[in-house]
Amino acid sequence: MNFVELIERKRDGGALSADEIGWLIAEYTADRIPDYQMSAMLMAVLLVGLDPDELAAWTEAMLHSGEILDFSDIGAPVIDKHSTGGVGDKVSIPLAPMVAACGIAVPMISGRGLGHTGGTLDKLETIPGFRTDLTSTEFHTLLGRHGLVLAGASATIAPADRKIYALRDATGTVPSIPLIASSIMSKKLAEGIDALVLDVKVGRGAFMKDLDSARTLAKTMVGIGKAHGTTTVAYLTDMNQPLGREIGNASEIAESVAVLRGEGPDDLIEVIYALGAEMLVLGGQADDTAIARTLLAESISSGAALAKFVEVAIAQGGDPAVIEDPGRLVAARKEQVLTAAAAGFVTRCDALDLGVAATRLGAGRETMEDTIDPGAGITVGVKIGDRVDAGDALAVLRFNDDAHLGEAIALAGRAFEIGDTSADAPPLVHEEVR
Amino acid sequence: MNFVELIERKRDGGALSADEIGWLIAEYTADRIPDYQMSAMLMAVLLVGLDPDELAAWTEAMLHSGEILDFSDIGAPVIDKHSTGGVGDKVSIPLAPMVAACGIAVPMISGRGLGHTGGTLDKLETIPGFRTDLTSTEFHTLLGRHGLVLAGASATIAPADRKIYALRDATGTVPSIPLIASSIMSKKLAEGIDALVLDVKVGRGAFMKDLDSARTLAKTMVGIGKAHGTTTVAYLTDMNQPLGREIGNASEIAESVAVLRGEGPDDLIEVIYALGAEMLVLGGQADDTAIARTLLAESISSGAALAKFVEVAIAQGGDPAVIEDPGRLVAARKEQVLTAAAAGFVTRCDALDLGVAATRLGAGRETMEDTIDPGAGITVGVKIGDRVDAGDALAVLRFNDDAHLGEAIALAGRAFEIGDTSADAPPLVHEEVR
Repeated sequence: MNFVELIERKRDGGALSADEIGWLIAEYTADRIPDYQMSAMLMAVLLVGLDPDELAAWTEAMLHSGEILDFSDIGAPVIDKHSTGGVGDKVSIPLAPMVAACGIAVPMISGRGLGHTGGTLDKLETIPGFRTDLTSTEFHTLLGRHGLVLAGASATIAPADRKIYALRDATGTVPSIPLIASSIMSKKLAEGIDALVLDVKVGRGAFMKDLDSARTLAKTMVGIGKAHGTTTVAYLTDMNQPLGREIGNASEIAESVAVLRGEGPDDLIEVIYALGAEMLVLGGQADDTAIARTLLAESISSGAALAKFVEVAIAQGGDPAVIEDPGRLVAARKEQVLTAAAAGFVTRCDALDLGVAATRLGAGRETMEDTIDPGAGITVGVKIGDRVDAGDALAVLRFNDDAHLGEAIALAGRAFEIGDTSADAPPLVHEEVR
Repeated sequence: MNFVELIERKRDGGALSADEIGWLIAEYTADRIPDYQMSAMLMAVLLVGLDPDELAAWTEAMLHSGEILDFSDIGAPVIDKHSTGGVGDKVSIPLAPMVAACGIAVPMISGRGLGHTGGTLDKLETIPGFRTDLTSTEFHTLLGRHGLVLAGASATIAPADRKIYALRDATGTVPSIPLIASSIMSKKLAEGIDALVLDVKVGRGAFMKDLDSARTLAKTMVGIGKAHGTTTVAYLTDMNQPLGREIGNASEIAESVAVLRGEGPDDLIEVIYALGAEMLVLGGQADDTAIARTLLAESISSGAALAKFVEVAIAQGGDPAVIEDPGRLVAARKEQVLTAAAAGFVTRCDALDLGVAATRLGAGRETMEDTIDPGAGITVGVKIGDRVDAGDALAVLRFNDDAHLGEAIALAGRAFEIGDTSADAPPLVHEEVR
């Protein structure tokens, strides 16, 4: 095959066959197609699109570029949850042990934070000793033994995606729905799961800013799951304001532990219940989501979910003392409180501004080479619809390094808007796509 | 500046400023922007386009990437002609000495053949000793002395275009009107000419297959010339059938000499007169094209044009004996005559099929690394509208190497169609754009 001819066909609006897509992904992964040709193809795909057959083939080719996990011997339904990323989005951390405590095997493969969105691995690693870089064998053993693993993706999973993602990042070809969908789904489907629940974040702090594009991405990923024969359900959940009260790495572990103790904030708990109930129904653990919610509530009230988190943390080398007493987690030395200038109602609590502000304080990364400050972050004091008096705390900025404090304060300041009339909080779950 | 941001802006339909375009062309030429980023930008430009201001800036940036020739001391109007390339298109070779004999200085910078279209340099080099790789100093001296040079582009002219063209060739980003127009015009305007006549070929054997796209390319190039302050006129001439009778390198020199002797085929002579008359009017040598045509005819009848060609060939190291007696040019050892199966009228004489057939016989290159066979080619016996009897020669294939003879015969065979009713030959000049 001639790669330039394939670029030309895609450029001119034509379709590529499954064989051609399989060939080009394999050749690029094996370094037999140069980056400068692949980036032209990626820009053509971004601007012209991929039809459903091409997209299924593209995803399968990436998925087959590396190891495909097989958990058929686990003896429980294997179901994962994936979020497209948000601010304060620590859902995976309490959700996974809750669902695992209800009899679902959860191979929770997560990533690191980049830009204004946090990453589950960075948060977990604030638990001293917690190892997220497991071998495939360790991963398999732990999933079989505990019904839960919380780890990073092995380098052997979908290496094509890794290589293509790095090129997209450097060539302005990230925001393509087929490329985003195939990147996520190739990695998830390579995990050998029975079903998948997607949390597609929508709003100011999400990659997808509006419902239309979020819905398109959700439908695209659900379609890929179907084509592969893996039941996939997507929830479009709100990311206009941060989820929960904490933005930061150690602080989000503390808030996750609070959820497992039945003490978490309402918005975070509701999103966890919505996604978790879907996982239990998909796994056959409950006939409907009402029953599933009861089971999830019992996993909290019985202490089973918290015990599962402690058990898995220990199995992955983590120190359980910080889970039993989150006050022992690392904390920032300094803080700056942001207060309301006048009384009124919170009409805006912008997830993007707050996410970027937290990054400037050290909680996130600008590039994958940056290191993060596990103690830095922001505690969000109010949410849209809350009534405030003058002098009330809107947010507390926590930091060790004040190099970018002024910028963070300005960002956090403009994140909030206080008006005279009450505003409704956006719905937490906008839509389901199945 | 951040190149990825510029890619993203172009990708999303935005415009780049002249400063940004100047920067990116300079950085890429200096190897400070990697190929894989530039190819993504080129695909975005191909699919999204450049507006007239961006295109003018892009062309100026490429033009200023290298040496800019200055012929202001020549003492004659300096006017060049450029063809977008065709089959049997040897127009430059007789045109340049005819126009030079009428008092215009012609810095005829030409290229090599690639694919089904021939190249003037390859043809000239069939004159033993003829040197086309002149230094800038030699070029300048010869133009001043003879009012004519026939040579290749110096590597110092528009190096940005050379680098970008190579990348486009490998990334499916060739057929973009703004990229084609800026590539041609940056090189031509760097020649320091007073005016330019463009021969935009249109039809089966041309890069532009239809009048609409040819007209768009012509208008785009004329617009760039205007923006630069260099009068540019484009003629849309027919390339559905080959121009003249000969396709091949040595054979096109022989046919060019025939023109200079007043013996060339009518279609070739008419295109030469149309373009040449425009050059004389632009240079102020004639008040209108009717007078200009008289001057061109006199350059033939007086022998001045042929003498100018001999003079310049000698100055560039060429053996004048082959011009005086073209029978001494290299010729292929073998031939195959293609005859009409039945009587009728020629309704098709396909330039693309015949151009590819000639390439298969050795007259052209598939890639720039291939070598050509100067004696190989095709003599086209009939043109659209001609009456033929069964057994009449449609074409003579001339070759030394018969490795691809079968393919060449099949291509040449399907190039011709003989019908019962007479067909009109397509007009030679479709339109002028000024």
